[in-house]
Amino acid sequence: MKINGTAYRSLWRPTDDNRSIRIFDQTRFPWEVEILALRDENAVAHAIRSMQVRGAPLIGAVAAYGLIFAIQKDASDDALKAAADMLVETRPTAINLRWAIERMVKHLLTLPVEERVAAGYAEADALCDEDVAVNEAIGRHGLELIRQAWKAKGEQGTVNVLTHCNAGWIATVDWGTALAPIYMAHDEGIPVHVWVDETRPRNQGSLLTAFELGSHGVAHTVIADNAGGHYMQAGKVDLVIVGTDRVTAQGDVANKIGTYLKALAAHDNNVPFWVALPSSTIDWRVRDGVKEIPIEERSAEEVLYVTGIDDTNTPSRVRVAPPASTGANPAFDVTPARLVTGLITERGCCDASEEGLRSLFPLDSTTV
Amino acid sequence: MKINGTAYRSLWRPTDDNRSIRIFDQTRFPWEVEILALRDENAVAHAIRSMQVRGAPLIGAVAAYGLIFAIQKDASDDALKAAADMLVETRPTAINLRWAIERMVKHLLTLPVEERVAAGYAEADALCDEDVAVNEAIGRHGLELIRQAWKAKGEQGTVNVLTHCNAGWIATVDWGTALAPIYMAHDEGIPVHVWVDETRPRNQGSLLTAFELGSHGVAHTVIADNAGGHYMQAGKVDLVIVGTDRVTAQGDVANKIGTYLKALAAHDNNVPFWVALPSSTIDWRVRDGVKEIPIEERSAEEVLYVTGIDDTNTPSRVRVAPPASTGANPAFDVTPARLVTGLITERGCCDASEEGLRSLFPLDSTTV
Repeated sequence: MKINGTAYRSLWRPTDDNRSIRIFDQTRFPWEVEILALRDENAVAHAIRSMQVRGAPLIGAVAAYGLIFAIQKDASDDALKAAADMLVETRPTAINLRWAIERMVKHLLTLPVEERVAAGYAEADALCDEDVAVNEAIGRHGLELIRQAWKAKGEQGTVNVLTHCNAGWIATVDWGTALAPIYMAHDEGIPVHVWVDETRPRNQGSLLTAFELGSHGVAHTVIADNAGGHYMQAGKVDLVIVGTDRVTAQGDVANKIGTYLKALAAHDNNVPFWVALPSSTIDWRVRDGVKEIPIEERSAEEVLYVTGIDDTNTPSRVRVAPPASTGANPAFDVTPARLVTGLITERGCCDASEEGLRSLFPLDSTTV
Repeated sequence: MKINGTAYRSLWRPTDDNRSIRIFDQTRFPWEVEILALRDENAVAHAIRSMQVRGAPLIGAVAAYGLIFAIQKDASDDALKAAADMLVETRPTAINLRWAIERMVKHLLTLPVEERVAAGYAEADALCDEDVAVNEAIGRHGLELIRQAWKAKGEQGTVNVLTHCNAGWIATVDWGTALAPIYMAHDEGIPVHVWVDETRPRNQGSLLTAFELGSHGVAHTVIADNAGGHYMQAGKVDLVIVGTDRVTAQGDVANKIGTYLKALAAHDNNVPFWVALPSSTIDWRVRDGVKEIPIEERSAEEVLYVTGIDDTNTPSRVRVAPPASTGANPAFDVTPARLVTGLITERGCCDASEEGLRSLFPLDSTTV
């Protein structure tokens, strides 16, 4: 997608310096657009730990290159495994990170030591291209939903999409998941406008989603997380599209805290509520998401403070609760499948149900 | 209620200086507890305009004293009316302010000029005492609900109440509306804990509700507005109590933006959702709140910025959205009566319906 008119991926290997990768320092978004060169595994580990890169697919891809940087001097089995362990530990709970590293290691261990670096670059490049292809397919299927909404309005006015948190291109290698259909609709000339939930406590909506939509030229409005229900009541939301961290076998959706409240409001107002996901997000081992998915509790500091830039454009934080008050900060919630209109996957759209998921991903095609 | 162990009203007339009133500078809450003396109508007008006092009942009471200050030198009809006009204009949309001033003027115009100042003090004092009595009655009726929740838990653990925005004692003369039952439960030894929605964009929950609960010694935890649905799913909310700005004849509830989302989550999880109100809040002229109540749109700056204190304890604000992004800021939403378990009024609890309201407020007892 574009920043100031130039198309980027969120991770690339420059042709003139192809033993390094480039990323954006996402801790500087939206205030600055700074490109970082990463050339060794320690820089990669730091980038992941410090959240210079974030978003499950992107972290996995960046770590894959980190593994190659690590084995450039010593590509032995032991060195490979040690580097893999070090990289997986940078974000122990990130499923995609472990998946990407395991894929790389499994492939490289089958090869002679002297071929591993070149083959590693090829495999990491393939991993990136696959991520882009999956998101592009999600985008095409979701685009059809926006086209339908546009037709349903007689091609008058604007298609208003509400989204929560950031499931955009900067969380993936390109396109994003929930935002991919929106970029495609925008690019083909459908007048789409996005209600961007600010997404407290970390404000990924107001800081990141607003930034990437604005950078690509998509019309959007930042709103408090409290406002979406009112806009649905008022007929000002045509559809909701969100991403997800995990979808269960019966179609329950774990996503950023507050997603469930928007699903309830969408259901109460007959607003379609869609969830965009790569099939790697489906956890076939879990059925009842509300009962079975553990919810990560993050630092209460994220609730008690808000981070932004102050009036001198300096990154700063303010405390928004009394000194003696404490906070609590569950990071995710689970939206029951009954509230989900459907799932947008790289193979098409389906009901949020076991039958729906199995219609696109038959038992023999998956690893369960 | 108490601050640091001392009981206060949010407005009082000191016995040793009884031609003045005392208020807290609420713009300094929760960072400082500063008492201001107001002795003339201009100081009163400034206190209202600058939000040193806020909350509909409190503004009305403060303005009533402002009217008396204004007529201490000249209590003629003309002077009285001019002062009334000036004070009403300080917050033109505040219904309670107009009501309180009109009550004062109507009463004083029936009296000889030389009796007006003394009679004015008596009337304003009565107005304050009535507000306290109404809130105290709301508290007693709501306390019964908390007692029932406590018994239903076998008097084990904690009664967890979720509230949104600030409907506490500092928005009234004392007790508050939604928080009155909580203070009474706490004072009689029921272990009550409050989930405090931070209430973006103005953070009245994390700034004011957390402050006043903490000052009185009530256990509470500040949470993002996004979190309440998850806590209800997890069985961690026993009941919700919120205040309201307007209740319609059929029981629809206009309140701070985001209230509707909590009502949906409560309904989805069989959590009782109660609304506490003085009967002066009922608008018998309006039936369908979603269709008929206009929603005030406030400055987008409130969404794009967050105000708190910085790391040097200086009041400060940070921007939380890209420079090029815009925001929207509806201040209220409407919760349909079907989602409201019941209303807690000074005359008791009732269904959120015309029949429910009329059972407590028969047609001949009201003005419509």
